[in-house]
Amino acid sequence: MEKKIPYKTYLDESEMPKQWYNLRADMKNKPAPLLNPGTLKPMTVDELEQVFCRELAEQELDDTTPYIDIPKEIQEFYKMYRPSPLVRAYCLEKALDTPAKIYYKFEGNNTSGSHKLNSAIAQAYYAKKQGLKGVTTETGAGQWGTALSMACAYMGLDCKVFMVKVSYEQKPFRREVMRTYGANVTPSPSDTTEVGRKILAEHPGTTGSLGCAISEAVEVAVGTPGYRYVLGSVLSQVLLHQSVIGLESKTAFDKIGVKPDIIIGCAGGGSNLGGLIAPFMREKLRGENDYRIIAVEPASCPSFTRGKYAYDFCDTGMVCPLAKMYTLGSGFIPSANHAGGLRYHGMSSVLSQLYHDGYIEATSVEQTSVFAAAEQFARTEGILPAPESSHAIRVAIDEALKCRETGEEKNIFFGLTGTGYFDMVAYEKFNNGEMSDYIPTDEDLEKGFAGIPDVNL
Amino acid sequence: MEKKIPYKTYLDESEMPKQWYNLRADMKNKPAPLLNPGTLKPMTVDELEQVFCRELAEQELDDTTPYIDIPKEIQEFYKMYRPSPLVRAYCLEKALDTPAKIYYKFEGNNTSGSHKLNSAIAQAYYAKKQGLKGVTTETGAGQWGTALSMACAYMGLDCKVFMVKVSYEQKPFRREVMRTYGANVTPSPSDTTEVGRKILAEHPGTTGSLGCAISEAVEVAVGTPGYRYVLGSVLSQVLLHQSVIGLESKTAFDKIGVKPDIIIGCAGGGSNLGGLIAPFMREKLRGENDYRIIAVEPASCPSFTRGKYAYDFCDTGMVCPLAKMYTLGSGFIPSANHAGGLRYHGMSSVLSQLYHDGYIEATSVEQTSVFAAAEQFARTEGILPAPESSHAIRVAIDEALKCRETGEEKNIFFGLTGTGYFDMVAYEKFNNGEMSDYIPTDEDLEKGFAGIPDVNL
Repeated sequence: MEKKIPYKTYLDESEMPKQWYNLRADMKNKPAPLLNPGTLKPMTVDELEQVFCRELAEQELDDTTPYIDIPKEIQEFYKMYRPSPLVRAYCLEKALDTPAKIYYKFEGNNTSGSHKLNSAIAQAYYAKKQGLKGVTTETGAGQWGTALSMACAYMGLDCKVFMVKVSYEQKPFRREVMRTYGANVTPSPSDTTEVGRKILAEHPGTTGSLGCAISEAVEVAVGTPGYRYVLGSVLSQVLLHQSVIGLESKTAFDKIGVKPDIIIGCAGGGSNLGGLIAPFMREKLRGENDYRIIAVEPASCPSFTRGKYAYDFCDTGMVCPLAKMYTLGSGFIPSANHAGGLRYHGMSSVLSQLYHDGYIEATSVEQTSVFAAAEQFARTEGILPAPESSHAIRVAIDEALKCRETGEEKNIFFGLTGTGYFDMVAYEKFNNGEMSDYIPTDEDLEKGFAGIPDVNL
Repeated sequence: MEKKIPYKTYLDESEMPKQWYNLRADMKNKPAPLLNPGTLKPMTVDELEQVFCRELAEQELDDTTPYIDIPKEIQEFYKMYRPSPLVRAYCLEKALDTPAKIYYKFEGNNTSGSHKLNSAIAQAYYAKKQGLKGVTTETGAGQWGTALSMACAYMGLDCKVFMVKVSYEQKPFRREVMRTYGANVTPSPSDTTEVGRKILAEHPGTTGSLGCAISEAVEVAVGTPGYRYVLGSVLSQVLLHQSVIGLESKTAFDKIGVKPDIIIGCAGGGSNLGGLIAPFMREKLRGENDYRIIAVEPASCPSFTRGKYAYDFCDTGMVCPLAKMYTLGSGFIPSANHAGGLRYHGMSSVLSQLYHDGYIEATSVEQTSVFAAAEQFARTEGILPAPESSHAIRVAIDEALKCRETGEEKNIFFGLTGTGYFDMVAYEKFNNGEMSDYIPTDEDLEKGFAGIPDVNL
């Protein structure tokens, strides 16, 4: 009899990754370099060091070293909440009556509620090692801010979080978790920064945006001795740290003797997707194995599927380096009815290049169908998923239903990035039948595109 | 070199318990029987069957069968979120600078956020097996209601939850999780039941209590064809199901070759403590091994440490059987400033008998010290604990600090029953320095004691 695959496959601590994998090393077409917004020349480590701590600046620009050691201290921290399980979704398969085998990597079993902690601890570690006093950052829904506050509490670093005002007001519990971990949380835009005051003067009633909160956090980091800025997604260093997700998954699949056919990840800035696919993409880039890889984004913020591939600003205040990426323009803000996260206007330049080169597919989904998938998943698999993660669930379910039609026994693998315990306002809307969908018109998008600078290398 | 104990010890699926352990079978002094409130005679299975489904009624009265098979369907469900990890708290040990070794069994890695799911799925399974349409229950903070709604969604059962009104209003997110799992949630007291209307008429402004919500749920269960009542704590059947916590823990300790010296559990109705200690208490009862076992309760609801050992009503409406237990009287309601859960007026009759016979110690702690321990734990171990669980954390830390004084390398083991993600209002109070303590005066207690009926066997 064939050995039954367990519901959950955990690695032993000895099997956990000791190195991160740097996807860029195996890319023939490297992601385009970050540009200094003043000179339009590629950023150097020395320039980046004004914003990031030294070792992270080096990781940001390193596109040749394939494996980078995970410092012992970070390995120890990982052991507190990792390895995360690779789960066989037996109950979902049964509910869908599909011959497909569905797997997911569950990153939500830690208090930050998502995969963000994987990079937060790395960034806090290097900041502490450099002798810094603290770090600044922005947070939208609050997952990144929570993760960073946990990492800073552990490392003994000060943590200043600019939280998009609408989230600060609607998600007081997220704010309170950060405060429990000792973080200082300020609603953005605020009057504590120049850029915040400027935005408030121009848009008095604004409830804020990620791009604006980034600008405030960078301003404080650059202007305060002993502080640096850290970011939870988009950056190549973040994808590097998040490779721990994919590396663990790959080892677990090898252990149970399974090869995934389709790999599905939600994509906002790309931190989850880039980490999830890393070792699989390595094999794909090297022609050793093929995988179908699908990025899923919200129809209301469709940077891959409807964005432009161009150099653009990473933040509203235009203080950050320019990045070449699929973008909707730094002024693009998703419709207010959008509840499902993944609302950044751009996309990781690593993933953008891979998508441009045809290694990744992308698709967009509407939020009521996302929450329907979330509810079905919650009821069958017993985990209430984050709205972000539920984008991947939607497409995984759709692919499994296609297998029901064709009879194919495909191995479908998706990243379950986190839990939705702090998203109950959105679930309530869905439960009450009050959730609506929104797809930006071409005119809506044109307004965002108009803000993309005319920079071509 | 001694092999290092891992941060987390997981059992393989093949090592998971296939039987629950029934502590009563090894007790020389059995817990006193439930009494019919009308006849004051011991309840029979036939009588209990009016309220509970048949197989649960049998389990409730079975004090002789030591091991009861876990049905295959429940074993499968357990595999979705179990085994739970036995964690070595290396970071907490380091922060406390103690020679003690601290371990905890973490039951919070499921969407209900606590151990309650272990019994919820069992009760839903037997109800479904009997062909029932649905079940009714009460919930206070919402952990039990959430667990039951998850179990009912999985089994395809209707689920009616009476939620203590103050929680219903202050914890809309908990309510929304239950609704996402398809449960019907009614604030209690409500005008949908006779007992609810009576209580509302007598106490128009009341924000409800657990005892009152129990009465409403029982009334609906008894009065609706195809429905039965289920309860998440106190009952002996619940302790039976929760033995899975202790059984897994014992196997994991045996795997790593460690024997705990002190076992600490929070105690409200007793579901966690009774499950956690089950296989250890077996050895203690049989004289095979000794363990120091400590029940921790809130100073504001001190049933073990200041209650009376007597037959008492389990609910405010006095519709349930009488149980002999340590009790503060069914009319006792903890002070409104009490935020930490564990607010039931009585205690499991199994645990009450063991405490009475000297097998268990009990201690009570005040809530600001509980939240201080919670915060310290969150910052060092990366898990934001439930206030309930934090009672055990408090005492575990105190015992570890004693070891720092004496130099003893004791193995301290506690149950981390769940996470505090839905308790941020309480954390906010603590973070703002607005939390206060409360210890009932003897006069306060006397009022509760006055409601204990004069029944002596």
